[in-house]
Amino acid sequence: MPTSLLKISHADPNSKARAGEFITPHGVIETPVFMPVGTQATVKTVDSKDLEKMGYKIVLANTYHLFLRPGFDTLKEAGGLHQFMSWPGSILTDSGGYQIFSLATRRKLSEEGVIFSSHIDGSPQKLTPESATQFQLDIGVDIAMCLDECPPYPSLESDAEISLQQTLRWAKRCKTVYRTWLNEQAARPLLFGITQGAQFSKLRRRSSQETVSVEFPGYAVGGLGVGEPKSLTWELLKASLEPLPYEAPRYLMGFGQPEDIWLAVEQGVDMFDCVLPTRNARNGQAFTSTGKFQITNTPFRRDFNSLDAACSCPTCERYSRSYLCHLFRAGELLGPRLLTLHNLWFMISLVKQIRTAIRRGSFTDEKKAFFNTYQYQEKEKQFV
Amino acid sequence: MPTSLLKISHADPNSKARAGEFITPHGVIETPVFMPVGTQATVKTVDSKDLEKMGYKIVLANTYHLFLRPGFDTLKEAGGLHQFMSWPGSILTDSGGYQIFSLATRRKLSEEGVIFSSHIDGSPQKLTPESATQFQLDIGVDIAMCLDECPPYPSLESDAEISLQQTLRWAKRCKTVYRTWLNEQAARPLLFGITQGAQFSKLRRRSSQETVSVEFPGYAVGGLGVGEPKSLTWELLKASLEPLPYEAPRYLMGFGQPEDIWLAVEQGVDMFDCVLPTRNARNGQAFTSTGKFQITNTPFRRDFNSLDAACSCPTCERYSRSYLCHLFRAGELLGPRLLTLHNLWFMISLVKQIRTAIRRGSFTDEKKAFFNTYQYQEKEKQFV
Repeated sequence: MPTSLLKISHADPNSKARAGEFITPHGVIETPVFMPVGTQATVKTVDSKDLEKMGYKIVLANTYHLFLRPGFDTLKEAGGLHQFMSWPGSILTDSGGYQIFSLATRRKLSEEGVIFSSHIDGSPQKLTPESATQFQLDIGVDIAMCLDECPPYPSLESDAEISLQQTLRWAKRCKTVYRTWLNEQAARPLLFGITQGAQFSKLRRRSSQETVSVEFPGYAVGGLGVGEPKSLTWELLKASLEPLPYEAPRYLMGFGQPEDIWLAVEQGVDMFDCVLPTRNARNGQAFTSTGKFQITNTPFRRDFNSLDAACSCPTCERYSRSYLCHLFRAGELLGPRLLTLHNLWFMISLVKQIRTAIRRGSFTDEKKAFFNTYQYQEKEKQFV
Repeated sequence: MPTSLLKISHADPNSKARAGEFITPHGVIETPVFMPVGTQATVKTVDSKDLEKMGYKIVLANTYHLFLRPGFDTLKEAGGLHQFMSWPGSILTDSGGYQIFSLATRRKLSEEGVIFSSHIDGSPQKLTPESATQFQLDIGVDIAMCLDECPPYPSLESDAEISLQQTLRWAKRCKTVYRTWLNEQAARPLLFGITQGAQFSKLRRRSSQETVSVEFPGYAVGGLGVGEPKSLTWELLKASLEPLPYEAPRYLMGFGQPEDIWLAVEQGVDMFDCVLPTRNARNGQAFTSTGKFQITNTPFRRDFNSLDAACSCPTCERYSRSYLCHLFRAGELLGPRLLTLHNLWFMISLVKQIRTAIRRGSFTDEKKAFFNTYQYQEKEKQFV
């Protein structure tokens, strides 16, 4: 088991931010990295070639969704998920635990695993730590995730502790499958452990410590951003990260707001994924260097500027806000596509900027400059 | 007024097929040509860059739709339709007559023009031969179409004759606006006349004769493919084409089935447009060298071949039928896009093949080869 998977080339002297890289079977991942979400083996509206051209090296897909459709047999017969979606880069798959709890109907959790009904056709399905891990490894992903349970916010401490222990026992079973797989196969995918602990710093710290003792090539922090105030998020993240080995990649699951990326990198996070840049694009929201805006708003009907003067994406190179506003108002599918391309370009540019800043030693200054320019609504303020 | 706009470089010795080219303000159009339909200033799911890369030189847009949304002021302020949609090639606009009769609510036809309610917001609108022509010329299109009335199938002969005369009087008014425009402006767009005549060969011939006497740079045959049996279509087309000047482009409106293109080119048609390759793509229908098929059908779930072994489009280069089937079944927007790219590639390849065949003198042989390979259902057979 690699204990120093992540080669950290630069560490920021004023924070815990670090820049580095690690190797997967399908190439080198430079960190910090943002991973677009391709739930059903496609990042919605764009294809693998678009992602390659933008410079993305890794995308997410989802075990729960792929398990149900197209299903294992099709993926296996295709020669694996990479072949199926024609993606030469790396793939990380969610374990599916989160989707089972949010999408499936009639689910039943037991020590063995989860029994649930498919959200597509209601058919009975079962996922265990063993089958979830085996599925991910067998379809050829680069980074598989342990099957975990994500407790709701807020949780009772006693419930959170029971859940945490269950996730830990499952992690060990996932690890066993992974170890067997490595002994029998030539490819060297990675299996990441997931640390939980609900809204309790003490449990978060303990979850990380115990997950680390199982030994994984990398670690994900799960169960954050589920409704808790932002100040608590950062406190809990800190507690989750502290026990993690320095040279293992750290992945903060489900985070991708530009401001959050700066703040989490500052705490030592290396990897991010989030549906917002793509989902919000489909709803007409553009991410720009000065903040977000809704392209369908009336003033944009006759605004002939590009989305972002600072952007050189294929959309900004060629199309005006006026045209994009028209596409959305006319219900044209090209609107969601062009805005998705833009937002994904924005996200990869953002993490490139952050990596460069860490390497140059200018992380703190550039972070400050970002927050001076970028307008956003902190959700916390809405809660308080 | 140019009387020999079309430079015919090759005429097939065994049929009326001809290959040539003509000049528009935005470039040279090689004929026979297929024009993709970009009703609302976008060919659905693809952008101008995609079309350029495929080699398209001309697209269609629709006056009725653009008139209502984004409207004249936005298009004018954008610097014209080309600028608005960032399309460097040529644009032909439908006059909007057909849409007024099929989409608008509460329309009222008079000698002056048409009063109708917008299908978007119900607002009262008016389009006259003058305003329709002026709109097209002012937004900078390369080929404007006269406002016409398209009688239904079947029509009474007396009604068809009244409608024909109305279309002709309107054509003269469109021409007047066009002549004035040419006198005052530097750009040299084209205005095409439209010949009608319902299902009566005699009226079709007369409509063409009288439209030709108004003198236009090119002529469109309208009102075919509206439900009449195919054998009648070809008979009526023949009657419509006969009176047209040899060296004017001839445009058969709304036709784009691969088999129809061969048969109409054989009769001397130069230009085609049709929503089917793009609309059917969005519904999962692939156009291939051996015929069409529905990608969502069960056998394709595990078919790892490309859509068409004979195709080198961006979709066939990279994706399998299995993946495309999955995208459609999963409701992913990438499915319609990838199939649209494929079908548009198929259509431009088809007309390229036809042009080359005419130039080489092998039109008849290649047409025969096409019909030997390409499977299709002739609608006529369904009627009989």
